[in-house]
Amino acid sequence: MAVTRDECQALDAEDPLKDFREEFSLPPGVIYLLGNSLGALPRRTPERVAHTVETEWGVHLGASWNSAGWWDLPQTTGDRIAPLIGARPGDVLAGDSTSVNIFKAVTAALPLRPGRRVIVSDLDNFPTDRYVVEGAARALGPYEIRDIGSAPGANGGTLEAALGDDVALVLLSHVDYRTGAMRDMAAVTAQVHAAGALMIWDLCHSAGVVPVEMGEVDLAVGCTYKYLNGGPGAPAYIYVAPRHQEAVHNVVSGWHGHAAPFAFEPSYRPAPGVRRFAVGSPPVLSYAALGASLDIWERVDMAAVRAKSVALTSLFIELTDELCPDLALVTPRDPAGRGSQVSYRHADGYPVVRALADRGVVGDYREPEIIRFGFAPLYLRHVDVYDAATTLAEVLGKELWRDERYSRRLAVT
Amino acid sequence: MAVTRDECQALDAEDPLKDFREEFSLPPGVIYLLGNSLGALPRRTPERVAHTVETEWGVHLGASWNSAGWWDLPQTTGDRIAPLIGARPGDVLAGDSTSVNIFKAVTAALPLRPGRRVIVSDLDNFPTDRYVVEGAARALGPYEIRDIGSAPGANGGTLEAALGDDVALVLLSHVDYRTGAMRDMAAVTAQVHAAGALMIWDLCHSAGVVPVEMGEVDLAVGCTYKYLNGGPGAPAYIYVAPRHQEAVHNVVSGWHGHAAPFAFEPSYRPAPGVRRFAVGSPPVLSYAALGASLDIWERVDMAAVRAKSVALTSLFIELTDELCPDLALVTPRDPAGRGSQVSYRHADGYPVVRALADRGVVGDYREPEIIRFGFAPLYLRHVDVYDAATTLAEVLGKELWRDERYSRRLAVT
Repeated sequence: MAVTRDECQALDAEDPLKDFREEFSLPPGVIYLLGNSLGALPRRTPERVAHTVETEWGVHLGASWNSAGWWDLPQTTGDRIAPLIGARPGDVLAGDSTSVNIFKAVTAALPLRPGRRVIVSDLDNFPTDRYVVEGAARALGPYEIRDIGSAPGANGGTLEAALGDDVALVLLSHVDYRTGAMRDMAAVTAQVHAAGALMIWDLCHSAGVVPVEMGEVDLAVGCTYKYLNGGPGAPAYIYVAPRHQEAVHNVVSGWHGHAAPFAFEPSYRPAPGVRRFAVGSPPVLSYAALGASLDIWERVDMAAVRAKSVALTSLFIELTDELCPDLALVTPRDPAGRGSQVSYRHADGYPVVRALADRGVVGDYREPEIIRFGFAPLYLRHVDVYDAATTLAEVLGKELWRDERYSRRLAVT
Repeated sequence: MAVTRDECQALDAEDPLKDFREEFSLPPGVIYLLGNSLGALPRRTPERVAHTVETEWGVHLGASWNSAGWWDLPQTTGDRIAPLIGARPGDVLAGDSTSVNIFKAVTAALPLRPGRRVIVSDLDNFPTDRYVVEGAARALGPYEIRDIGSAPGANGGTLEAALGDDVALVLLSHVDYRTGAMRDMAAVTAQVHAAGALMIWDLCHSAGVVPVEMGEVDLAVGCTYKYLNGGPGAPAYIYVAPRHQEAVHNVVSGWHGHAAPFAFEPSYRPAPGVRRFAVGSPPVLSYAALGASLDIWERVDMAAVRAKSVALTSLFIELTDELCPDLALVTPRDPAGRGSQVSYRHADGYPVVRALADRGVVGDYREPEIIRFGFAPLYLRHVDVYDAATTLAEVLGKELWRDERYSRRLAVT
């Protein structure tokens, strides 16, 4: 073996992020490689949520809209997310789901490019991005959706071929949810701007694990329940470049985005800046959980996270290359070209993932034929990577996944 | 006095709903007349939320999307709300905020009446209803918004005068958030249908306190954090009449509303029925809290709730008539014409409300000059109403609200 288990333990002992593992409540006997889907529970989240439920709600009730800062949660939470995506406080608003924020971002951006009637989307994006673009195009349309990417229907189209003076905006994922491939955000943004179009980034699979800089980006959206550990369905966020903030309109124009929400004026008048992208009453309990995880994240050095992410994913690829030479890697080998996940193609990927889970290694399966492993540097160790790779080798080498109890497909995976 | 405190206690002893008070955790020394804004905390909510955080999330992690039913929460929660609004399970979906649901409802309904380019809205609606109509009209427009109601700008317009063969839909509140006035839902729906338009009801101030029947209603929306005790920012809901469900389109077309969300198809294909109004990942912790309150609500007889609501509001009006004869009631005296709140006009309403709160009686203030008291029959007693009315009389009679510490206006009330 290129590296031994003892050597992995030695690497863990020197890991500058090692103490963060204690901040999380991890299930016993499990190597959790699904932090790219739902991040682990921070140890202090339960008490924070309990305080919000029992004291802020139970005792102070409606007064907490002021006294506990509930009203401002979309902004104060957005301010805390901002440094994690290379944005300034004031330019990010937390709220709603990622899908709702994609809708708000796309419908806000399209009117900035009147006359241009094409939206470029990537069929390799997570599907909701494309689905929501369809809805937004239908609402504000007619718009043509020009697909790029490797999936059927895109005809292998590249971004370069898709760009033209008819393109209003481009919506792409920074890190591909299936392959883990990462785009050069600044270069692609410049390419899109050179064609006169606007650039919207989906940061779901990069925030919290890859250093991100908003730079010249126009708008961006992302979620907080993956690497950021905000909890299931935690509030998503939207970033709007300062140069666009006073020009864009939120078509989902609810009272929380009004300039004077308690004046109860008869007509909508947008709040200054990103606050106009607030809509209705925020799900306060979900913000409480996210707040507890952001307490951890504000102490994290993102450069150290990236370095460890590269180390862990490289180690997993190296071990798997050696132990499972027939397994087809679909994630870029160059660390600069990937996020924090490693994916393989396997015709029987679903039973493989289930057999692994039965042995305490939790990854997941995505159509078509993709097995995915996410590496969350705050709570995963080198030794976990070693054990996961050897378990994968055992499952594949002994064909343990052929056991019929792994073949049944669940409705949701 | 028309009634004594002892007589109120006797009424409480005979109250068929009296045991429900024990289901709630009420702050000591407070008479909470703001359940129309944020309902009180059910006693069992903290343990339910803690279970979701610590076990479903902390231990089972992503597997809970299946095993704990997270994926289906919008539908299963909607099914439990349905009987509270006189709808059938399967016709209600819980999720997002009320404002987002108004957007989804209005944009879904408008294409059902092609050629009709007018939306009738009520300037006495809660402002977000009108604000969101503006956004929806802008997205799908051009549409004219024809205002009715008593507020400036509506010119006193009535629904009858506003209806015509150019009207696509009408959006009204069942119970007015300021005055507590209640419309006859069936009669108004019939009137709107006679003009060929669609009817959307906002049930925020009626669900959980007034018996509601969907009958011929086309679409409806509402929240669950007021009388339904779901917690701050709890999921809202949308009702779609069965006859429209396959015809309507959700422009916010996220993957949770897709017919086969895990097939990751390239294009959006709506799920059957109301499920298509799901958008992104549901804020699971907020659903957990709502689930605990719905455990209470499924044991409640709505006729008994309405009877007690009428008794409590009538008692408050009667006592205040006697003790504060100069106070101007803005709520209909006929119980059939009001929901479960009682409002008065007072030029110094804001300091009055603050002076009351200082004495343990929590109501609220709404522009312009409205003091509001909501009566939640599950946890309020006749004796609370008595004590609230006598406290109000003392604050007004002794002009205690003139104390300068009550005059400062907070940013959010």
